Amino acid sequence: MLELNKIDNQESMVKLAAVQMEPQLGCKKENVAKSVRMINEAADQGANLITLPELCNTGYMFNSRQEVYDCAEPVPGGYTCGEWEKVARERGVYIVAGITELAEDGVRCYNSAVLIGPDGYIGKHRKLHLWCDDKIFFEPGDLGYQVFETPIGRIGMLICFDMWYFENFRILALKGADVVCCPTNWVDIPPAELRTMGTHLAMVNANCNNIFVVAADRIGTERGCKFPGRSLIVGPDGWFRAGLASDNQEEVLVAEVNLMEARRLNWNAMNVIFRDRRTDLYDAALGSGEKILPR
Amino acid sequence: MLELNKIDNQESMVKLAAVQMEPQLGCKKENVAKSVRMINEAADQGANLITLPELCNTGYMFNSRQEVYDCAEPVPGGYTCGEWEKVARERGVYIVAGITELAEDGVRCYNSAVLIGPDGYIGKHRKLHLWCDDKIFFEPGDLGYQVFETPIGRIGMLICFDMWYFENFRILALKGADVVCCPTNWVDIPPAELRTMGTHLAMVNANCNNIFVVAADRIGTERGCKFPGRSLIVGPDGWFRAGLASDNQEEVLVAEVNLMEARRLNWNAMNVIFRDRRTDLYDAALGSGEKILPR
Repeated sequence: MLELNKIDNQESMVKLAAVQMEPQLGCKKENVAKSVRMINEAADQGANLITLPELCNTGYMFNSRQEVYDCAEPVPGGYTCGEWEKVARERGVYIVAGITELAEDGVRCYNSAVLIGPDGYIGKHRKLHLWCDDKIFFEPGDLGYQVFETPIGRIGMLICFDMWYFENFRILALKGADVVCCPTNWVDIPPAELRTMGTHLAMVNANCNNIFVVAADRIGTERGCKFPGRSLIVGPDGWFRAGLASDNQEEVLVAEVNLMEARRLNWNAMNVIFRDRRTDLYDAALGSGEKILPR
Repeated sequence: MLELNKIDNQESMVKLAAVQMEPQLGCKKENVAKSVRMINEAADQGANLITLPELCNTGYMFNSRQEVYDCAEPVPGGYTCGEWEKVARERGVYIVAGITELAEDGVRCYNSAVLIGPDGYIGKHRKLHLWCDDKIFFEPGDLGYQVFETPIGRIGMLICFDMWYFENFRILALKGADVVCCPTNWVDIPPAELRTMGTHLAMVNANCNNIFVVAADRIGTERGCKFPGRSLIVGPDGWFRAGLASDNQEEVLVAEVNLMEARRLNWNAMNVIFRDRRTDLYDAALGSGEKILPR
């Protein structure tokens, strides 16, 4: 009873934001300046945790590794993180944003997301599932699954094509994530009247894992590739909380939520969603892979 | 090249059907008669593989175990399977349908789905993830994951709440399923203008596993519980192929598809969807469960 009251307490209310923006390829200073303006806009609306798109400081459609090196930077320690740390401190907000990362060895690059809070750099995620030409420019993520504990809740990160692999959301949820922030650059073109598959992935993975999912997508066309927008913020019930963003405008979505809803795992008198997993059956097939047929 | 031509050959075209119907609780003979009429209707449209809703021979909202025993039957060997075997033979079709099963011991009951073909009974699935009062009336499924090889393709089955656990679709896909047929009795009530979560689950699981998904839902209200219809047939691209069924009418959806699309796993020059799974990372977390934090 006490526990229930605590869950309903005002102190667990958090404002989640998704910043839908259009970076310009290679124009890092301009992109970072724009991202800071939009972070401020979200903070003006009271946002506590602000998610921005994949590679939002550099753009996405690289044509050569040199183009990547020209704008990649250490995380933390580079120009972009410095600017984001500054605004996070000034506004007292948490930021998750996609960034083109140059690793410590000066050779490897990663398609990364960084988590920055009012006290500075907290952690980073390196995209685990590389999409198409990502494989030419970036290394597969080598940091696995991390859930960062913060005063506002437990935060996980995934990037774009990571969303197509259910295992990623599942593992973050099992590790205790309340919210998974997803910087994305979706590229699929849905049939008329339907939304990009990413929106459905956000809804379903939020519901099935009883977590919040924030997907911040980009818009615009870059070297012939059109990005479909449609950013969204989804609750553990699987429904979006602040509408859907457009498919062609820069905008900021903000939804006030009780992040602690992610801790309510009893869906009814009989079902507790993670207890109901059939790990008696999953182990052999999803674990070692030994019993899986090639196809 | 030969392989590609073979994939495009007419012989791999299959007509999938989803029968959306409203059974009446406890009226088994009437329900089976109606299911046979609707199977014939689908067959008239050329359907080869016809999926019907969960527990479509008995209804769903039981109030006592005695009510379940009053209509449960062996699978195969009971009245319902007999009727479905007859129509499958007459029309040369494959049928997947939800059925209230009495186990061999005469005590245990299962929420099952049966696969019947032109030559008779092929196999059954017992619902793995029981929803709410299911847990009072039925035992958790003990047959694990099965993919049945048939002349028209490899067929898997899941039932309703099984769809909320990604592991189920994933394992069936890894075992080679071309299509997963889902008899359902969805009960969620979406916000206005949105479809039941089951429709999103069907889309996302089809796309992420590169399989076809057929979800046959029921309609109507039974003891105060409203069922939302919205049956659908989804391709490996994640989009539905024959529209969405209504939320209040009995109807038959039919979509002609190339079932062999489920064997094309190369999404582009870089990505092969199952090769790209990060089993290097999944093993520890999804396998033994040892490293999972309680939450």
